[in-house]
Amino acid sequence: MAPITNGRVLFNAVPEDYPVPGKTTVYDTSETIDLESAPLNGGILIKVLLLSIDPYMRGRLRSPEKESYSAPFTLGQPLAGGGIGVVLRSEAAGVETGAHVRGLLLHQEYMIVPNLQAAMLEVIERDPKLDWSVYIGAAGMPGESAYVGWRAYSDGKPGEIAFITTGAGPVGSMAVQLAKKDGLKVIASAGSEEKVKFMKEIGADVAFNYKTTDVREVLAKEGPIDIYWDNVGGDTLDAAMEFAAKNSRFIECGQISGYNNGYQPMKNPGLIFAKCMHFHGFLLFELRAKYAEAFQAEVVPRLVSGEFKSSEDITRGLDKVGDVILAVQKGTNTGKAVVRVADE
Amino acid sequence: MAPITNGRVLFNAVPEDYPVPGKTTVYDTSETIDLESAPLNGGILIKVLLLSIDPYMRGRLRSPEKESYSAPFTLGQPLAGGGIGVVLRSEAAGVETGAHVRGLLLHQEYMIVPNLQAAMLEVIERDPKLDWSVYIGAAGMPGESAYVGWRAYSDGKPGEIAFITTGAGPVGSMAVQLAKKDGLKVIASAGSEEKVKFMKEIGADVAFNYKTTDVREVLAKEGPIDIYWDNVGGDTLDAAMEFAAKNSRFIECGQISGYNNGYQPMKNPGLIFAKCMHFHGFLLFELRAKYAEAFQAEVVPRLVSGEFKSSEDITRGLDKVGDVILAVQKGTNTGKAVVRVADE
Repeated sequence: MAPITNGRVLFNAVPEDYPVPGKTTVYDTSETIDLESAPLNGGILIKVLLLSIDPYMRGRLRSPEKESYSAPFTLGQPLAGGGIGVVLRSEAAGVETGAHVRGLLLHQEYMIVPNLQAAMLEVIERDPKLDWSVYIGAAGMPGESAYVGWRAYSDGKPGEIAFITTGAGPVGSMAVQLAKKDGLKVIASAGSEEKVKFMKEIGADVAFNYKTTDVREVLAKEGPIDIYWDNVGGDTLDAAMEFAAKNSRFIECGQISGYNNGYQPMKNPGLIFAKCMHFHGFLLFELRAKYAEAFQAEVVPRLVSGEFKSSEDITRGLDKVGDVILAVQKGTNTGKAVVRVADE
Repeated sequence: MAPITNGRVLFNAVPEDYPVPGKTTVYDTSETIDLESAPLNGGILIKVLLLSIDPYMRGRLRSPEKESYSAPFTLGQPLAGGGIGVVLRSEAAGVETGAHVRGLLLHQEYMIVPNLQAAMLEVIERDPKLDWSVYIGAAGMPGESAYVGWRAYSDGKPGEIAFITTGAGPVGSMAVQLAKKDGLKVIASAGSEEKVKFMKEIGADVAFNYKTTDVREVLAKEGPIDIYWDNVGGDTLDAAMEFAAKNSRFIECGQISGYNNGYQPMKNPGLIFAKCMHFHGFLLFELRAKYAEAFQAEVVPRLVSGEFKSSEDITRGLDKVGDVILAVQKGTNTGKAVVRVADE
């Protein structure tokens, strides 16, 4: 078999604010691969099927001298992120051709890894009722983030009030459903009418479009809030603090309002002691092991049965990664952003 | 016996920024009391001996329409605060003449209360080795604040690094000593060389004068910090966040930098999730009951034995309350600020 193109998405330039498709990242077709004869040296050849595009990736599109919690992408090299692939050939023990793997994949059509561990991959099976895309969404990293943050830090009690931002996204929508399952009243926000509709479908008691409805008006009427799930930061965080109840818990999962133009300051940190507030920042990988089994037991079967719902926004084509990264930063995607690189 | 003057400190005007002695508060001698014949109606006549002047009192010197965690003082009425008094006459069961009481006292020389509970008072005995002033300092509310905050939220482990602000004050110095007792390395800051000396005496590994030494330089060299005890807020809080370790605990006891001119914003709230930080705001009265016994058992005997040290700055004369309130806001007092209203 002749070599074929192995398309890749390369990190091309550090963005000043929002990433620019075609400039921040470029789609490159200069490499080829012979799927039959490429030497594996004991490793595994993977065909990339699905890639997860997540808000945190903006943080990796930075200069290497800037420190942060995640490693920077390397200029001139492919991006990487969560994804699903299928094994085309394997010389590794216990990894069969045709098996599906989940974990950190390069943003390219085909990749060779020395073994599963090196690339933080795991062989994964699919419930026939769930698409593979769910396994990088509600049943994957974003759903697990919501689960871990909620279980570790919400201390949610029936009748309490939770305010959840990005409530239609893969993390927020799982947080909404966990909060409802725990018997709380849920206020949820997102940036479009379509998302408001989805948040109501998954059980939010109060769902609003923050672009057309004033968050302070909603919280004044529906609060004070006992739990705040932060995926946005900025003025919404300030508003949540203003309408926070005594002893409230603020779960800091992310602050997308700050990823592209810098974080807005927190207006009134004095409220933290005056209201006996508790803030908990967390990163999934630090807590994952502790909650992995419970997540599999509590969440995945509910997705299979339909009790928990998820929503995906799938874009076809590896060359679209740059557009989807921008969409996720702007919030114009609807549901979990996934790029379908190839069919099986 | 003829009536005598019953001096009082009245709340006279809401301050714009720092309280102004003689304007914010005035010393008033217009009332009299006949100590022998004043009717008690079943209550207790108390002679005020010592008054505790604390940073939080600035928050009570406000307009009644402004909401906060503590009740505002009433214009034209006496201030109130922690203190020690002695019972001159009593018609209340179980309260003997000569007994000492501790709790919320009015800022006046003599007061009549219907019973102990109404004024949140308790009969208290003194260890002969400790002055009464210690019972409103290290063995009282400030010491207990440090104890409760540290035990509830520090999660301090031997070898970890704690940065404690106002380390020479009654709360901070107790936090320093608790942290050392738990085996941590302690960095402590205060605003004078005399205070630096005291912080070293009580065991701080690194003690510095924040007015002459750059906090970031100290933390860059001695950090990163696992625990931050916040009594100041503002730029010091920002610096502590910059040099915070992963999974650090920030205990928010107070932010005096914001009490007189408004709170400074927190520069980079995005660090909360990026560093998996935990912020815990607390107010003593919410947690007091849970830790009261342990505080009595763990702290008071160490003060008696001299293992734990305290420092008081005692000013004589009820008419000096306004000056001492200002000194506490400016940090010019050295040690726990106490006003001695009268001798026994």
